[in-house]
Amino acid sequence: MMPSEGDERRAAVPDPGLIPGGNDRLKRQVDFLLEIDRLKHVLRQTILLDGSRRENTVEHSWHISVSAMLFAEHAADDIDLSRTIRMLLLHDIVEIDAGDTYCYDEQGKVDQHARESRAADRLFGMLPDAQAAEFRALWDEFEAAATAAARYAHAMDRFQAFLHNYFTEGRIWREHGIRRPQVVARMQPVERGAPLLWQYVLTLIDDAVARGYLLP
Amino acid sequence: MMPSEGDERRAAVPDPGLIPGGNDRLKRQVDFLLEIDRLKHVLRQTILLDGSRRENTVEHSWHISVSAMLFAEHAADDIDLSRTIRMLLLHDIVEIDAGDTYCYDEQGKVDQHARESRAADRLFGMLPDAQAAEFRALWDEFEAAATAAARYAHAMDRFQAFLHNYFTEGRIWREHGIRRPQVVARMQPVERGAPLLWQYVLTLIDDAVARGYLLP
Repeated sequence: MMPSEGDERRAAVPDPGLIPGGNDRLKRQVDFLLEIDRLKHVLRQTILLDGSRRENTVEHSWHISVSAMLFAEHAADDIDLSRTIRMLLLHDIVEIDAGDTYCYDEQGKVDQHARESRAADRLFGMLPDAQAAEFRALWDEFEAAATAAARYAHAMDRFQAFLHNYFTEGRIWREHGIRRPQVVARMQPVERGAPLLWQYVLTLIDDAVARGYLLP
Repeated sequence: MMPSEGDERRAAVPDPGLIPGGNDRLKRQVDFLLEIDRLKHVLRQTILLDGSRRENTVEHSWHISVSAMLFAEHAADDIDLSRTIRMLLLHDIVEIDAGDTYCYDEQGKVDQHARESRAADRLFGMLPDAQAAEFRALWDEFEAAATAAARYAHAMDRFQAFLHNYFTEGRIWREHGIRRPQVVARMQPVERGAPLLWQYVLTLIDDAVARGYLLP
């Protein structure tokens, strides 16, 4: 069905504001839940481990959220794990409007924050005011990467993407002619957020160059 | 590439146990992270809201985890939201081995718990012992549905699937000839875990019958 049909149909839905105990807050929350379904259609520059297709942003978001649970003991500092997970669940929602920007696309990155910030305004702005502020604060905290929880979140974000690149024999790296120094620079948040994983990343980078997955 | 090739390649990877500060724990955690990528291939009896394709289990897991953040104020009891989210991130991982069992497939449901429990043994058993126990405890808590956090988690699990059915005009309900009493019974966890959402569900069920999405 066409999006416009969907929008019309949705407008005709019983308003939660009209149900016993229902209110405008609930309507805005349900609208947000329906809206973010669109993130399942945003494809990333990452291949699933069996090589069959590109990963979408929702799949990435789930995988890094689980990885935050998994590697919490390796975080550089004491972290509020619940806050890290909530950041990781939300931080890529802006790609619904802004799309996925490939991390080595220097041109795309010039206005990436501005595009994503506008998307955050629109998407979190769908929510009741206090909740919009709460979700936006999580998104801003991730972007600023100034707290321990956010630094660890960044480490998870980068580490999962790196593993996918390595374990699909650098297919996307090779397609884009990516070089070792670019990957080392990109993975700095792992060094800051999860030092033991950084040692592992360096080992795999050496191996990736040796195997020809990555240019020297 | 074939799974067997992937397994061989993975076996040849530098062992994190050999890196400075590395250990067997890290190797088991990385293996688990790679293994759960397979959940992205498990398709559910749910259609994305634009009608384009079936949803996979990872997408569902992310969507219900965000919905737990979204609707926390509507939980029936005081909940440990962080615990609910961690349950929701993990609880469907067993479908890697056990597959998705359609909720109205009475035959499939007979041995569903046994199949999923074996899958939980294998998958969580990949992890270091203490972490395996921690993840398994979250899975068991969800299954038992005896704590407030687990009851709210069940409400989120059911509510998201219900919204998808309703907003795709009951396509899967119609394909399977599902009737109103089946959906009402299936949605009981919403009544227990998030009473206001239950009022909304009842309103939409009435509307779904009126529109012919669902048999009376």
